[in-house]
Amino acid sequence: MEKEITIYDIAKRLKLSPATVSRALNDHPAINSDTKTLITAMARQMGYRTNTFASNLRRQRTNTIGVIVPRLNSNFMSTVLAGMEKVANEASYNLIISQSLESVKKEIANAKTMFNSRVDGLLVSVAYDTDKFDHFEAFIKKGIPLLFFDRVIEHKQCTSIVIDNVKAGYDAATHLIEQGCRRIVHVTGNLKRNVYADRLTGYQQALRQHGLPFDESLVMITDLSQEAGTEAAKRMQAMPERPDGVFVTNDFCAVCCLITLKKLGVSVPDDIAVVGFNDDPVSQVVEPDLTTIHYPGAKMGEVAAQSLINHLNGLLDIQTTNKIILHSELVVRHSSLKSGK
Amino acid sequence: MEKEITIYDIAKRLKLSPATVSRALNDHPAINSDTKTLITAMARQMGYRTNTFASNLRRQRTNTIGVIVPRLNSNFMSTVLAGMEKVANEASYNLIISQSLESVKKEIANAKTMFNSRVDGLLVSVAYDTDKFDHFEAFIKKGIPLLFFDRVIEHKQCTSIVIDNVKAGYDAATHLIEQGCRRIVHVTGNLKRNVYADRLTGYQQALRQHGLPFDESLVMITDLSQEAGTEAAKRMQAMPERPDGVFVTNDFCAVCCLITLKKLGVSVPDDIAVVGFNDDPVSQVVEPDLTTIHYPGAKMGEVAAQSLINHLNGLLDIQTTNKIILHSELVVRHSSLKSGK
Repeated sequence: MEKEITIYDIAKRLKLSPATVSRALNDHPAINSDTKTLITAMARQMGYRTNTFASNLRRQRTNTIGVIVPRLNSNFMSTVLAGMEKVANEASYNLIISQSLESVKKEIANAKTMFNSRVDGLLVSVAYDTDKFDHFEAFIKKGIPLLFFDRVIEHKQCTSIVIDNVKAGYDAATHLIEQGCRRIVHVTGNLKRNVYADRLTGYQQALRQHGLPFDESLVMITDLSQEAGTEAAKRMQAMPERPDGVFVTNDFCAVCCLITLKKLGVSVPDDIAVVGFNDDPVSQVVEPDLTTIHYPGAKMGEVAAQSLINHLNGLLDIQTTNKIILHSELVVRHSSLKSGK
Repeated sequence: MEKEITIYDIAKRLKLSPATVSRALNDHPAINSDTKTLITAMARQMGYRTNTFASNLRRQRTNTIGVIVPRLNSNFMSTVLAGMEKVANEASYNLIISQSLESVKKEIANAKTMFNSRVDGLLVSVAYDTDKFDHFEAFIKKGIPLLFFDRVIEHKQCTSIVIDNVKAGYDAATHLIEQGCRRIVHVTGNLKRNVYADRLTGYQQALRQHGLPFDESLVMITDLSQEAGTEAAKRMQAMPERPDGVFVTNDFCAVCCLITLKKLGVSVPDDIAVVGFNDDPVSQVVEPDLTTIHYPGAKMGEVAAQSLINHLNGLLDIQTTNKIILHSELVVRHSSLKSGK
C-alpha cells in the first residue's frame, strides 16, 4: 500500500511549518493568497488527500468555537475561559459561551443553539445532572469536534481534560491528617460528577492509608454555594463529637464556612483546620488565609482550546486521545496549620 | 385616516393577553397551533398589519440573544448574566455570550460573530476603549434590536440601562466626608466610560458641596485589578500628606487595597476609611467588612433581557426609550466607620 501523503510531507518539501500548510489547505485568513496557491499546488502535485479525520477541513468554517459551562459565577471558570480566549485569539477564533445553569435541559438547548450557530468545534463542562450524551450526537455525526474539560463524560470520540482529582483529594486529606486531624468533614457536590466523586475517593484513600475509619456522616453533599458553607459550619459546631478538620471542595464555600466557624467561637485552625479547593483569590483575602488546591484553570482552558484548534487544523486527532491530565498542587496557608505542630 | 389595528385590539376582541397575540403572530413555539390559527384569522379579518416597529416580527427567529461583555471575571457580571438567563429562560430564549476582553478590536469580531449567528437581539456592555458605534450598524440596518447596559454608548435607536453613577459616587464620597475624611483618594477606571466618568463627577460634587478642594493628584486611573488595589495602597502610604479615606470603584480592588494598607501598618478605618463599589460577596469576607455601593446586577440583567424580549414581541419599542435608570444604594459596613465618630 502506497504511503499516504501528509501535511508534514508537504511542509518538509516547501520548508514551511505544518501549521502553515494546514492553515493554507483550510483557507485560513492568516495565510496570504500566494502562499495558499503554492501550497495547494504542491499538495495536488504530491497526491495529498485529506483523510477522514481531517474531513472537517473541507467544511465551511465560521472561525467560532462554542463553549458550554455550568455557570459563569466562579473565578475558576473565568480563568478557564481566559485561557481559552488567549489561544483562540491567537488563532483568529472567536468564542461564544453559554451557561447550562446546572440543568441538563438547558444544556440540551445550549447544544442546539451552538449547533445552529455552526460552531467549528465545541468545548463542554457538563451540568450537575447530565448523564446522557444524546444531545451531543449531532456534533459527532457532522464531524464537529467535541472536547470535555473539568466536568467530563466519557465518550470514545472525545478527549477529556481534567486534573487528577483523586490525587488532589488525597493531598488535601493527607495534609489535614498530618496536622493531627482525626475527624475530617468533607463538604462536596453531586457525586455523579467525576470531579466530586474522585475527590471523595482521594479523601477515603488518605483515611485508609493512615488507619482512620471512614465515617459517612462526615460527608456533606451540598451545592457548594456560600450558604452551604455557612450551613456546614453550623452543622459541624453542633456535632456531639466535634470534628477537627474540614475539606471543602470549593474555596468560596470554604471561606464562608471558615468565617461562620469564627463567628461561632470556633478557632481556625486550632479547633478546626480548613482546606479549600481551586485557589480562588478570595482564599488570600480571608483571615487566616486558606490552604487550598491550586487548580490550573488558565492552563486547562489553553490546553482545551489548543487541542481543539490543532484538531481543526489537522495537527492532532482528538479522537485518538482519551484523556489529558494536568498538574494540580496543594498550597499550604494558615487555615490548616495547627499551632501545636 | 383610519385607526390602525393593534395587537391590543385583537387581544381585546379574543379576550386574550396582548402577549399571547403577539407571540401567536410571531409563530412562537409556546402558543399551540389552534390558538395561532384563530389569532391569525382574526388579525386578517380585522385588517391588522405589522408596523415598522414590529417588522422584525416577520424575520425568522433563532430564539437566541447575543450578549457581549468586557470580561466574565466579576461577580457583578455573573450576576447580571444570571438575571438575563432567568428572563430569557422563561421566554424560551437562549443566551450566547462573548467577551471583548476590554478590546474594541475583539468587540468588533464578537459583533460579527453574533451577527452571523443570526441572534434575534443583542445586549452589550462596551469595552474599555470603544468609542465608535460602526460595528453595531449592521444590526440597526437589519432591524435587530440592540440594547446597552452598564457601560453604554449613546445612540438614538438604542435603550441604555444604567444606575445613576453620579449619585452613587456622590453617596460614597459624602459618606466618607461625614465620617470626617478630608483627603479622599479616588481609585477608578478609564474615564472614557460613562460609569467611571459619572462616579468621578459625583465624588467632585460631594467635595464641592462640603467646601473641600478637588485635588487631581488624589485621583488614580487604573485597570481596577487586584494588583491595582495593592499598588494604590502603597502609593497612599507613601504620600507626604497622608489621605484619610479612599473610594475605590470596584470591590475586589478595594479589598486588596484594604489588606495591603493593614499589612503596611495603616489602621482601617481609623487612619484610612475605605469604600468600595458593587457589593461583591468578597466585601463581606474581608476584615473589617467593606462599605460599598450595592449595584443591582441581577435586576439590570432582568430589565435588559425583558426590554429586549418585549421589543421582539412587539410590546415595547426600545427605540422610543432612551435610558432606564435603576436604584443603587450605599451599604455601610465597618471599613468606613471611624471610631471617633
